[in-house]
Amino acid sequence: MGALKLHSLNSILASSSTALSSRSQSIFRRHHRIGLSPRRLTTANFSAQSTAEKDVSPKTDDRVANQKPRVQDRGITPRSEDFNAWYLDVIADAELADYGPVRGTMVIRPYGYAIWEAIQDYLNVKFKETGHSNMYFPQFIPYSFIEKEASHVEGFSPELALVTIGGGKELEEKLVVRPTSETIVNHMFTQWIHSYRDLPLMVNQWANVTRWEMRTKPFVRTLEFLWQEGHTAHATLEEAEKEALQMIDVYTKFAYEQAAIPVIAGRKSKLETFAGASKTYTIEAMMGDRKALQAGTSHNLGQNFSRAFGTQFTDENGQRQHVWQTSWAVSTRFIGGIIMTHGDDAGLMLPPQIAPIQVVIVPIWKKDDERTGVLNAALSVKEVLTTAGIKVRVDDTDQRTPGWKFNFWEMKGVPLRIEIGPRDVSSGSVVISRRDVPGKQGKVFGISMETSILVAYVKDKLDEIQSSLLGRAISFRDSNIVDVNSYNELKAAIGEGKWARGPWLASDQDELRVKEETGATIRCFPFEQPEGRIKKCLMTGNPAEEVAIFAKSY
Amino acid sequence: MGALKLHSLNSILASSSTALSSRSQSIFRRHHRIGLSPRRLTTANFSAQSTAEKDVSPKTDDRVANQKPRVQDRGITPRSEDFNAWYLDVIADAELADYGPVRGTMVIRPYGYAIWEAIQDYLNVKFKETGHSNMYFPQFIPYSFIEKEASHVEGFSPELALVTIGGGKELEEKLVVRPTSETIVNHMFTQWIHSYRDLPLMVNQWANVTRWEMRTKPFVRTLEFLWQEGHTAHATLEEAEKEALQMIDVYTKFAYEQAAIPVIAGRKSKLETFAGASKTYTIEAMMGDRKALQAGTSHNLGQNFSRAFGTQFTDENGQRQHVWQTSWAVSTRFIGGIIMTHGDDAGLMLPPQIAPIQVVIVPIWKKDDERTGVLNAALSVKEVLTTAGIKVRVDDTDQRTPGWKFNFWEMKGVPLRIEIGPRDVSSGSVVISRRDVPGKQGKVFGISMETSILVAYVKDKLDEIQSSLLGRAISFRDSNIVDVNSYNELKAAIGEGKWARGPWLASDQDELRVKEETGATIRCFPFEQPEGRIKKCLMTGNPAEEVAIFAKSY
Repeated sequence: MGALKLHSLNSILASSSTALSSRSQSIFRRHHRIGLSPRRLTTANFSAQSTAEKDVSPKTDDRVANQKPRVQDRGITPRSEDFNAWYLDVIADAELADYGPVRGTMVIRPYGYAIWEAIQDYLNVKFKETGHSNMYFPQFIPYSFIEKEASHVEGFSPELALVTIGGGKELEEKLVVRPTSETIVNHMFTQWIHSYRDLPLMVNQWANVTRWEMRTKPFVRTLEFLWQEGHTAHATLEEAEKEALQMIDVYTKFAYEQAAIPVIAGRKSKLETFAGASKTYTIEAMMGDRKALQAGTSHNLGQNFSRAFGTQFTDENGQRQHVWQTSWAVSTRFIGGIIMTHGDDAGLMLPPQIAPIQVVIVPIWKKDDERTGVLNAALSVKEVLTTAGIKVRVDDTDQRTPGWKFNFWEMKGVPLRIEIGPRDVSSGSVVISRRDVPGKQGKVFGISMETSILVAYVKDKLDEIQSSLLGRAISFRDSNIVDVNSYNELKAAIGEGKWARGPWLASDQDELRVKEETGATIRCFPFEQPEGRIKKCLMTGNPAEEVAIFAKSY
Repeated sequence: MGALKLHSLNSILASSSTALSSRSQSIFRRHHRIGLSPRRLTTANFSAQSTAEKDVSPKTDDRVANQKPRVQDRGITPRSEDFNAWYLDVIADAELADYGPVRGTMVIRPYGYAIWEAIQDYLNVKFKETGHSNMYFPQFIPYSFIEKEASHVEGFSPELALVTIGGGKELEEKLVVRPTSETIVNHMFTQWIHSYRDLPLMVNQWANVTRWEMRTKPFVRTLEFLWQEGHTAHATLEEAEKEALQMIDVYTKFAYEQAAIPVIAGRKSKLETFAGASKTYTIEAMMGDRKALQAGTSHNLGQNFSRAFGTQFTDENGQRQHVWQTSWAVSTRFIGGIIMTHGDDAGLMLPPQIAPIQVVIVPIWKKDDERTGVLNAALSVKEVLTTAGIKVRVDDTDQRTPGWKFNFWEMKGVPLRIEIGPRDVSSGSVVISRRDVPGKQGKVFGISMETSILVAYVKDKLDEIQSSLLGRAISFRDSNIVDVNSYNELKAAIGEGKWARGPWLASDQDELRVKEETGATIRCFPFEQPEGRIKKCLMTGNPAEEVAIFAKSY
């Protein structure tokens, strides 16, 4: 494991991907090649479905339907039936992303990108509050930089994209398209840092990175992805350690409070600690299929890179010292985590805090003379809610029935739906349905359109949904973590698809054995440890001070 | 000129760069190579100066000074003496950017990046208000895509960066690192657009792009740069035309109201219209050396790309039609425009609307017992102004004298400086200095610290500075545009370094002749045309309905 395996994503990205269902595989393979004829793409379910919203129904326009035959509207694969097929269907149908023309690349569509923007908006504020400045490093890194750190070459070489031709000429030195920026960051830090007064140096960049992955999966593992990478340099190990912990805490709060994902934060085992880091902290999320997703990491890099790049400062005693560093990252993979944590058979389910549309208004009319009144009421409700800071969309197209729209916006995961029909207009009230409570149970009639009442009700419900999603995810997580005290118990838990938590103080060999025999790895030694006296290691029986969590992972 | 020459930057980027002063050249060359020893870099003035803020003065710490000999503090090259050397000095000293390790690349440092964030914040809101959604397209484009549009290959080939190795293997098809995204955008649009109901499709992305430029200059022309690129598809030519005009208008308003740059908006000549576009609109800014900077462009692409990529829709009559498209972009080049419009001999001068720091507070004390009172007052003033939404920084370091700090923050272009000394604390007042009015004239004593008075005063002054910078730039621009009615007059104006504006209806050959003989090109046919009757073309004497503006450009 190389030092370039610094960021969370890499370890997961490199791990073997789950076998896709045959249906998913065919969708996926179809997009692995470049230059497919438009006909194949439009008849394939991924693309056809991805245009469902604006698509022309065969019933309304036969000429178009004849020219471009397409699949009938149908629901997505139920999550309970095939988790992976469901995942790909949701991404296609909810128009979160599409496959790019180059194998393994992904186009992030507006609805998916809006989720990324919500992630950015929150984290960007937190990064600045904690003293970091944004900046931008070039994406082309001289190949020699990668070679400077021995484990870097070893770890990253297999997954590098290399620019060898520029301006029509073969380059003297190959350029690496950044897989992560520690090397170029240290090259620059070495020039900027001279004295202890230049420290701490705390920066972040929002950027694209490239890793030549062989097995890709939208959002979770793509050849190019978007992320933020924080890089800091400090005068002491203690400061770097504090920073690394602070940033994993920022990620943890984001996961709980915004994404409603009850991640487990902790420390990686030595084997899973990336080379170059003295410690790696991680947040681990349980997906709907109970596999773990490493959703963010923060590394205390020690002096590994500062020694490789000669990043030194003069301390208060006039002595030259190598700086102590950290790096930390969260990527578009997090969107995959949101989909796989909250989604259900009906599709996506978005926590209100990060939903691009929090409320969709569906006006309902049958006769033409009802149309104007209903639409006016819908627009007026939209105006009221928008003014109150709520993200609202009115679906007033003539093309689809209200029932179709209900299903569509449920599939898109919009937390609240407001229905307004002619009778509601007369009574000055609306019908409100919760995405997270299916059917009649989640539907409340007769909510007054009166501004103060409506706004308060909607805000209250959005808060309730946010809490409810988190609560549900916590229950799911906790009911799927088994406390184990022996290797047999561990194997049984993993065999049932659960996470196993137990006292651990064994060798790297033992850890590898667990991986080989069960497919599970140590996700982390959680920060929250059970109270009470020292337990016995589940493998060796020796006294163990900590429990570790084992699980299969993405 | 290829169709890839779609965006503003390219035409300028490709034009021959100004001869740099010998000093600038040496700075520049020094950074063209990879792997310079830290010693050379730290003794070179670019890097050494770039650490001036936190640097250790030889007077305060001899040990450090002895270990790392560095140039004496000195002012930047006066703008009046050498515009290019001044430009590079400002970028280095104000810590806006540094050179990346790969020739022609640039690291955008936090202070420079904060200006880019101000540009993004404003434009992002405007793009969304005008109906665009952000999304993300992969940066790797199959080489075959570039070849699909004949002029694209011709125009872009010389400046492409190509990935030929991925995951340790030679790729079957070379991948282009995006120089602009029209090809991949159209590839995806072709899959998403089916009927007129899918139109208009209006998206934007914030991304990095790569063009293998041989002559580079920080911000103005770099191998990799950041930009936004808008891409839209419409059912009719008229809609596309309206969109292209709307977006150049958004850019124009941004330039005037935020950057205080009085750009001249207009249409490019046929020769300067990028192939693939039926019309190109541009905003042209006059820099401090009176050269023109193309600061943003918006293209009506017609059906050029939709025909190359088969991007069709079924219209209301059931007929298949190619979509009509636009694209438009503004890049980090704009930061160069801000520097070169407002800067003066003392350094950078930032319009308050886009200044990362609008007010710097310099506490002044001599005796230790004065320190606490002064610092507390400074922090309390900061609190008051920050609460009022003003961006404030307190420079409370012990390392530098107040005089040094005054110069430093002036060089960084901070619009307002507040000085607080012991006597000010006693009298409950502060001293406020304007960056744009040098010396005593710009300094006002005895402004009350009382919240309402101070906030109102500061806001008022910031507004005044914003207007003043724009007014000054307008005067400068207008006094350097000469109305000409003959080729001789044009040559004289250009010879004096000015812009020439005159009636033009001549051939492409005539236009090329002007370029060859004077170095000037048609920057645009401005939207604002002089009133009155039709004039005679300055070159041919034929009746001309429009005036064109000629200038030398970056």
